Amino acid sequence: MRDVAVIGLGMTKWGELWAKPLRTIFVEAALLAIEDAGLDRIDSMVVGCMSSGLFVGQEHLASLLSDYLGRIPIPAARVESACSSGGLALRQGFIEVASGMSDVVLVGGVEKMTDVTGCEATFALGTAADQEYESYQGLTFPGLYAMMAVAHMHRYGTTRDQLSMVAVKNHDNGSKNPLAQFPSKVTVEMVNQSVLVADPLRILDCSPITDGAAAVVLCPLDMAKRMKRPAIRITGSGHATDTISLSSRKDITRLESTHIAAGKALAMAGRKIEDMDLFEVHDCFTIAEIMITEALGLAAPGQGGKAVEEGVTGLRGKHPVNPSGGLKSKGHPVGATGVAQAVEVVKQLRGEAGERQVKGAKRGLTQNMGGTGGSALVHVFEAD
Amino acid sequence: MRDVAVIGLGMTKWGELWAKPLRTIFVEAALLAIEDAGLDRIDSMVVGCMSSGLFVGQEHLASLLSDYLGRIPIPAARVESACSSGGLALRQGFIEVASGMSDVVLVGGVEKMTDVTGCEATFALGTAADQEYESYQGLTFPGLYAMMAVAHMHRYGTTRDQLSMVAVKNHDNGSKNPLAQFPSKVTVEMVNQSVLVADPLRILDCSPITDGAAAVVLCPLDMAKRMKRPAIRITGSGHATDTISLSSRKDITRLESTHIAAGKALAMAGRKIEDMDLFEVHDCFTIAEIMITEALGLAAPGQGGKAVEEGVTGLRGKHPVNPSGGLKSKGHPVGATGVAQAVEVVKQLRGEAGERQVKGAKRGLTQNMGGTGGSALVHVFEAD
Repeated sequence: MRDVAVIGLGMTKWGELWAKPLRTIFVEAALLAIEDAGLDRIDSMVVGCMSSGLFVGQEHLASLLSDYLGRIPIPAARVESACSSGGLALRQGFIEVASGMSDVVLVGGVEKMTDVTGCEATFALGTAADQEYESYQGLTFPGLYAMMAVAHMHRYGTTRDQLSMVAVKNHDNGSKNPLAQFPSKVTVEMVNQSVLVADPLRILDCSPITDGAAAVVLCPLDMAKRMKRPAIRITGSGHATDTISLSSRKDITRLESTHIAAGKALAMAGRKIEDMDLFEVHDCFTIAEIMITEALGLAAPGQGGKAVEEGVTGLRGKHPVNPSGGLKSKGHPVGATGVAQAVEVVKQLRGEAGERQVKGAKRGLTQNMGGTGGSALVHVFEAD
Repeated sequence: MRDVAVIGLGMTKWGELWAKPLRTIFVEAALLAIEDAGLDRIDSMVVGCMSSGLFVGQEHLASLLSDYLGRIPIPAARVESACSSGGLALRQGFIEVASGMSDVVLVGGVEKMTDVTGCEATFALGTAADQEYESYQGLTFPGLYAMMAVAHMHRYGTTRDQLSMVAVKNHDNGSKNPLAQFPSKVTVEMVNQSVLVADPLRILDCSPITDGAAAVVLCPLDMAKRMKRPAIRITGSGHATDTISLSSRKDITRLESTHIAAGKALAMAGRKIEDMDLFEVHDCFTIAEIMITEALGLAAPGQGGKAVEEGVTGLRGKHPVNPSGGLKSKGHPVGATGVAQAVEVVKQLRGEAGERQVKGAKRGLTQNMGGTGGSALVHVFEAD
């Protein structure tokens, strides 16, 4: 397998982009990535999107987007793994370049979620759960993560305040990110007193509904080295699945697929988790980030709440988690999230993250997951 | 890139499988493929499915299917390219094995289309067209292909009888396929007099709505050679896109993406189209097969109707097209079709196709397309 580098990044402001259709949102991010790469050549593209069918009545997405990007007849593939569709797109693009099948691959992620009502969006997101054993019983994602939170609090003594501190940290970071949907800062009190969604999760524990896209350009490392832009290598890719339904899990306080995917990605990179300087992870709910820090080994099992409380995962902490603001503050256009994580990590490793720069960052890790962890994708990035 | 072989095939009877949910249909085909491979090991899986979101309210499909196949925590990816989702799954699996990322990859395709009403199915299929420029104007796929048929008849003198002869041939072939949804034979008169759907296309010009799945197991060729089952190599893979909307095409009587994808696949294999002994192609409508034979170079532009009339594409003709019965007779569970084409070609190259065996077949080609040709996937298979 060939070494693979990221040579272009593209992302626009995320939010409720009512004036722009899905194709426009995607094309804007893709053009920024192509411009950033400084290379007017795309051999193939891979797009992550969870449910353009349910959100905007459009499948055959890769054909549409290759057309609107003006890139036909190149191969274009769309991949789906619920909220980890973007991470999956990155992995497929990585494999395609590593294999030698294509040299320059555009990897994009996109979701247009605000063209439907809140109920319809909740239904569409609910299709990431097991339709027969979860969705049909009326469960939606805040309810599923609320059960995980209750179990975690009960078993480990994780507190309401610790959940809130995840939101406070990520909104603090997001306030330094001009592309974030909600760059506003929040306090522990604000989170604790916000509207209850599914006990114990409150509205400020939840990532928002967002329209957005992100894109990166990949190419072989040796090709990247001949170019002007800094080449950040992807040195590890891990992908794992777990039971789609929470009811089938051995332990609903553990994210086993994340643990396995991270182990694979780090092994491929020949690195340990301690070697990583920053982390972009899937904080779809505050409890998710706490459980992810444990699954990655940044905190012992049950100690994820304590880690955020003690500042371990803060921007200036030992293990900075979600310097971009994470899904909480930056927004969560589900299919785009995994690609946006790569955009942030590469930006950090280039030293271009401005106010939220993790100083001297040389290695970073992204963790993206689908549903309640039925799928997880982890990638390791390194500056040369 | 490593050489890749197909070592396992799985497919069950297709039709209106009301008693079986999507997961069951998929698992049955996957288990047959694993059994056929004689190898109880799967390192990764790729599933093609067009729209489980709209058809059955389930996304996050690869997580679900890896779970129900009892294969967690292996990596599992779902890919979508409308009706060419199966062909795209095959390509992604091929790249994954060729790259060295995984050794044994299960490639599956599945669609459960009969749980919704006819109107809902028509809407779901319509999402393969350009939503803003085609679907919103009321166009559905019979209408789109009818326009292509009218243009072809007008420009080249293709006749009503020639369209019907495609259906007659494919139902003849399908009558020899015990897994076909409609193994009944039809006559030119029956097709000519069947209910009009979108002038000039009649109901017997159209492939049906089908529930079904198909699966193949891929591995590196050197590994396959050490096993007992015959190893059929995938020697070429081509993928191309075209404008998603017919209104943007230079010429709606040409399938440019198929022409380009076939050229790439044959170039990779180091073969010419004349070297192929049989073809499984995407006859979603009778006119589609006529245009595909031209795009592949089996007939000159405009001469595809004549080719079927003269028996060139018959089971005992010079270029046997759709020995399986094609989408017309075998059925068209959209995401499964591209994988089922591979099942048929490999079965033929193994000499296991029974009554519909193309004698002495050593090389075969599959052509799978999405929408009106907005995407196309072509693969070349060779017996050792």
